[in-house]
Amino acid sequence: MRPPKRLSGVFCPVLTPFHDDLSPNADALVRQCQWLLSQNVGLVVFGTTSEANSLSVDEKIECLDRLVAAGIKPDKIVPGTGCCSLSDTVTLTRHAVDLGCAGCLVLPPFFYKDVSDEGLFDSYAEVIERVGDECLRVYLYHIPPIAQVGLSIDLLERLVKEYPSTVVGIKDSSGDWPNTLAMLQRGWDDFRIFAGSENFLLRTMQNGGAGCISATANVNPAAIDRLFSAWQGDRAAEMQDELDAVRSVIQAYPMIPALKAIVATFSNDADWNIVRPPLRALGDAQRSSLIKALNQLNVEMPGIEISKAR
Amino acid sequence: MRPPKRLSGVFCPVLTPFHDDLSPNADALVRQCQWLLSQNVGLVVFGTTSEANSLSVDEKIECLDRLVAAGIKPDKIVPGTGCCSLSDTVTLTRHAVDLGCAGCLVLPPFFYKDVSDEGLFDSYAEVIERVGDECLRVYLYHIPPIAQVGLSIDLLERLVKEYPSTVVGIKDSSGDWPNTLAMLQRGWDDFRIFAGSENFLLRTMQNGGAGCISATANVNPAAIDRLFSAWQGDRAAEMQDELDAVRSVIQAYPMIPALKAIVATFSNDADWNIVRPPLRALGDAQRSSLIKALNQLNVEMPGIEISKAR
Repeated sequence: MRPPKRLSGVFCPVLTPFHDDLSPNADALVRQCQWLLSQNVGLVVFGTTSEANSLSVDEKIECLDRLVAAGIKPDKIVPGTGCCSLSDTVTLTRHAVDLGCAGCLVLPPFFYKDVSDEGLFDSYAEVIERVGDECLRVYLYHIPPIAQVGLSIDLLERLVKEYPSTVVGIKDSSGDWPNTLAMLQRGWDDFRIFAGSENFLLRTMQNGGAGCISATANVNPAAIDRLFSAWQGDRAAEMQDELDAVRSVIQAYPMIPALKAIVATFSNDADWNIVRPPLRALGDAQRSSLIKALNQLNVEMPGIEISKAR
Repeated sequence: MRPPKRLSGVFCPVLTPFHDDLSPNADALVRQCQWLLSQNVGLVVFGTTSEANSLSVDEKIECLDRLVAAGIKPDKIVPGTGCCSLSDTVTLTRHAVDLGCAGCLVLPPFFYKDVSDEGLFDSYAEVIERVGDECLRVYLYHIPPIAQVGLSIDLLERLVKEYPSTVVGIKDSSGDWPNTLAMLQRGWDDFRIFAGSENFLLRTMQNGGAGCISATANVNPAAIDRLFSAWQGDRAAEMQDELDAVRSVIQAYPMIPALKAIVATFSNDADWNIVRPPLRALGDAQRSSLIKALNQLNVEMPGIEISKAR
């Protein structure tokens, strides 16, 4: 196998559909992934938006195998593989590499708090050394609002220096633009910095970033990808405003249930509303007001695209 | 199998020993558990102190099976079984019930933050219904400083009312005495409230609590158990002061590495120092100053007991 190329573009942390009994619905996942690929966005399965940490390693491996078996090219897939447990992270990362995935998005272990940079360095180093494969490409995952364990710029620097051909990028979901900018300004050789939300896409591209990996790409992929392609064009600022308007409507609701409600509505498949606890599906009233607010937006309606694609 | 009785007394979240390659050392775990039982404390394997969330479900099942195979009675074992993933929590809880364990200490799913009481209720309800065994006894685990997802008193009330013979107790590791007191004052029928630290043991007993489940029981079990037995006696306040003095020495260091350093020193087995990342073992200087400080305490020296027992 040839080592994967470094990535750029728009990636979607793909929602995980469930059956009534809360088991993952691999068939529906395949369909969502195929549609996302048709919209020119890459597939980050098992991100935060995917409820990845509500799934077991075995369930994630099964889903990943089903995607590949369905003909989805692994070079379009960047699974999230970072778990609390070192052994789980190694198992899942190794499986992704063996399948030929384009990279792995790796959360730090997130149960213990106030851990040191040295301890986090050890965590990533153990995973990299144990997987021990030149085809492994690690994209670090910085999401302190949820994981509560973040990655300092000093830690990134140490990892990039120690593993320059393995630690090749990061998703910055801090929501803290000065942090993203500070990373961009370090200018590590060909290091790929992805905004964790399309809110920051234009600024990220203007400062040398690689793209974004954003939850809302589940429902608004084409418009996000258009800004990625045209960020140097005249309409870029306007396109950014349009993306922000869509996101701010969705963000008024709990993000994951809201995205699932949108997909459920426009795919005419109510099962898409199902989430695993501790999350809760939106209530009927919330769902109606969300869809109404999206319909009232004076921008291209993401749901219509989903609807057309089915 | 007969349903287990409700618990009281002193329990130890047992440290997990590792080999050089970071795999769990089941033989050393058996020895530590046997020693703890000889000191009259029960076994909470896979608590926070056990680095439970740095282990996979398979590793935990393997360790649990080894303990039982070594002759340790399951009615002395209360494994921590709460994971991020619903499927993992169900698998591990079911295994513990099948083995005949005295109960399970169950963390809420802790990756997603700001989740609702309803979502947390759903999480526990799904685990209880899926395990579906009248021998399941759930001890809730409230540890907001680390899990960052806590259990409100309203949520407890709802769980106790819905599952009165299954949800039978809680470990309160909030470190927030008014919270523990508020739970004690609710007076749910025979609900067993354990302090999460021996600092609160006397107060907990004076207000109708069931005991404590404390990290430092790994190195100071007998003295904690003596206060549990004699909390109504004349020396109780003095005994509490002595326990607090020992704990405050240990707490000046990162708790888990410090406890491992103490066991390593007094058992003459340096491998006990090994932790999984993201934790780091104490450095030599820290280890020396910790042991020196413990030796200088004018109270019964916990390490000497460990040393005698080996």
